[in-house]
Amino acid sequence: MADPVRIGLLGRGTVGAAFAELLAEQAGAVGSATGRRPEISGVLTRSDGDFGAILESSDLIVELIGGADPARQFVIDALRAGRPVVTANKQLLAQHGDELFAIAREAGVQLRFEAAVAGAIPIVRALQESFGATEITKVFGIVNGTTNFILSEMAATGAAYEDALARAQELGYAEADPAEDVNGADAAAKMAILARLAFHTPVTLSEVAYEGIESIQPDDLAYAKELGLSLKLLGVAERLKGGISVRVFPCFLYGGHPLSPVEGPFNAVMVEAPAITEVTMSGPGAGGVQTASAVLGDVVSILAGDAPVHETREELPIVADVASSFYLHLEVADRPGVLARIAQVLGDNEISVKSVVQRGIGDDARLVMVLHECLESRFEAAVAALSELDVLRGAPRAIRAIEEEFV
Amino acid sequence: MADPVRIGLLGRGTVGAAFAELLAEQAGAVGSATGRRPEISGVLTRSDGDFGAILESSDLIVELIGGADPARQFVIDALRAGRPVVTANKQLLAQHGDELFAIAREAGVQLRFEAAVAGAIPIVRALQESFGATEITKVFGIVNGTTNFILSEMAATGAAYEDALARAQELGYAEADPAEDVNGADAAAKMAILARLAFHTPVTLSEVAYEGIESIQPDDLAYAKELGLSLKLLGVAERLKGGISVRVFPCFLYGGHPLSPVEGPFNAVMVEAPAITEVTMSGPGAGGVQTASAVLGDVVSILAGDAPVHETREELPIVADVASSFYLHLEVADRPGVLARIAQVLGDNEISVKSVVQRGIGDDARLVMVLHECLESRFEAAVAALSELDVLRGAPRAIRAIEEEFV
Repeated sequence: MADPVRIGLLGRGTVGAAFAELLAEQAGAVGSATGRRPEISGVLTRSDGDFGAILESSDLIVELIGGADPARQFVIDALRAGRPVVTANKQLLAQHGDELFAIAREAGVQLRFEAAVAGAIPIVRALQESFGATEITKVFGIVNGTTNFILSEMAATGAAYEDALARAQELGYAEADPAEDVNGADAAAKMAILARLAFHTPVTLSEVAYEGIESIQPDDLAYAKELGLSLKLLGVAERLKGGISVRVFPCFLYGGHPLSPVEGPFNAVMVEAPAITEVTMSGPGAGGVQTASAVLGDVVSILAGDAPVHETREELPIVADVASSFYLHLEVADRPGVLARIAQVLGDNEISVKSVVQRGIGDDARLVMVLHECLESRFEAAVAALSELDVLRGAPRAIRAIEEEFV
Repeated sequence: MADPVRIGLLGRGTVGAAFAELLAEQAGAVGSATGRRPEISGVLTRSDGDFGAILESSDLIVELIGGADPARQFVIDALRAGRPVVTANKQLLAQHGDELFAIAREAGVQLRFEAAVAGAIPIVRALQESFGATEITKVFGIVNGTTNFILSEMAATGAAYEDALARAQELGYAEADPAEDVNGADAAAKMAILARLAFHTPVTLSEVAYEGIESIQPDDLAYAKELGLSLKLLGVAERLKGGISVRVFPCFLYGGHPLSPVEGPFNAVMVEAPAITEVTMSGPGAGGVQTASAVLGDVVSILAGDAPVHETREELPIVADVASSFYLHLEVADRPGVLARIAQVLGDNEISVKSVVQRGIGDDARLVMVLHECLESRFEAAVAALSELDVLRGAPRAIRAIEEEFV
């Protein structure tokens, strides 16, 4: 294998620390995927390290210090020195994107930033590459997890804004100073980036109109629920006659809207275009390891150069007998003791029942049940034993189920 | 600009024709994004054209004839001749993936296949690139639009399987011979590909256990609805102790599961890993232009080489006064004629009401309404006029809404 790739890491906060850990864990896999094993050659923190020395001894810079300054100068210096840069810094790109992209093009090096928008959701890559030749008409969604958690909490519990915010802070979904999240500024920076990528036009933060959620009243959520509406803080960038519009605002959605079920700290982004109809991507919008994972994906892409042709890394055998949960539909005789005999057979095979309903009478009597997860071989043995019983009027009908319940 | 890129197109069915059209439309955009303008230099159909001549006169091959043969030999010949290949052929990759990837690696050329799984949803790229260094534990979802349409139709209308299938054929969501779709074989081929990418291990079609939806009874759907379950044909690939499992089967999901709301001919794929929690991607699973769009995305990636640094193509102005729909909450005096006066103000500003509810009495009386879309300047004028009325007990509260209703 070739020499290791030396990564200069700027910043060791939540994401920086998670990135260092993930990289150590995955260095072997990255090496086998790209032919070059990455290692961290230097770390700059607010109090420690010399940027010039770190730049000198690195092949690639990962910028996770956040904020426009001094990040801007570090990224400019790195690009001019021919180092590819991976950053998660939405403020930097939303405010100085034009300048930084121009410098990167001039220097002929990559500037990647998947982690700057929507955490682990690969929306930047989708817009730049998958949909790079698609006439996108609209990109919109939930791009701030803090506000989505607060609104979900208010809707679910009737809590006031202040109480829902306190709960978010308690759970680590909101920072001690939540202003940038709750007033919509964070979402605005992300939408400036998405609009730029979708429409191939310069968009800066100052052009994005934004409103936050601070003045949402619990009774608005209550009345809206009666009307079948749910509330989200949406970022919307769309092509209009004569130009584009890029805005952030709280917005009611009717039930059935693809963004309605996105609850808690999750993010989701929808892309609309005639050629793709509409594609929706959702996932965790923040979190140290999730953001670090997006950063690592960018590092891998830079190391891989052209997309690698698929290569197997190991040969995993197929496991034949797996665990499943089942829906079981039995046409039964309508007489006492039937359920007991069936339950006995299931119990004998160590299968327990999650829920059961009895329906119909006489010749239409049937038991419909959902069973807890068990090995499929056990379930088959149970069905074979059930089929022998004289209380069944027809062959058992079984369909798999996923037992997990979501609310 | 450099010479045009000559594309040899194999196949001119639904997807092939849509690709040729989309390429003609987007050639300029692709040229400005990649520096090289693509053009079709030759087309091979079942009845016309000579593969050798097309290969000779092309820089890149797009294979859209489908089926394992003769596609396999064409792709092998193209790769060996040093031509990158883009294909939408799931059967080819599920059956001969090992051979084709080995030849591509040996020849040092790209073999891309985003369109082979889940149409416009960029799941192949996400698995290969974004999550290329992520320890994926499970990838699963709805990867066949025909069966999802049939199951949605059965659940919504109580129709028998045969009738729902006939309806799908009528609407063009099922082929005249639907066997491969309804028996699960199509989904199995796609899951073989996804499992290979997720787990970096060889998986062939013959290793995927699959069941179809042909024996699903309407009353199973009816009983399941009472239990809060919805039915999907799922493909599931997961890492287990001792190996992996790759299967396709009809499966009940509890309400609230992220895949539950995926209805009709849509596809959706979920990826689970500790580092990303869970990411879900959904969109149209088939369709000529949607699949062609995924093919074009691959072509662009090949032409672009390393990921291009973002470049603007035009400068679009920000449109300030856009159309929105609004939720409007008015605390009103509880006396006759109030609604009439408010409606008059809205009407004067050419704003019409979508729905309105009156709540509370006396000092708690209020009108909560959703308005049809109007220019925001008109809405602001209406709110200013409403604020002058003596029938309001407090400042109007307005929140934007998306008017579109989904079911």
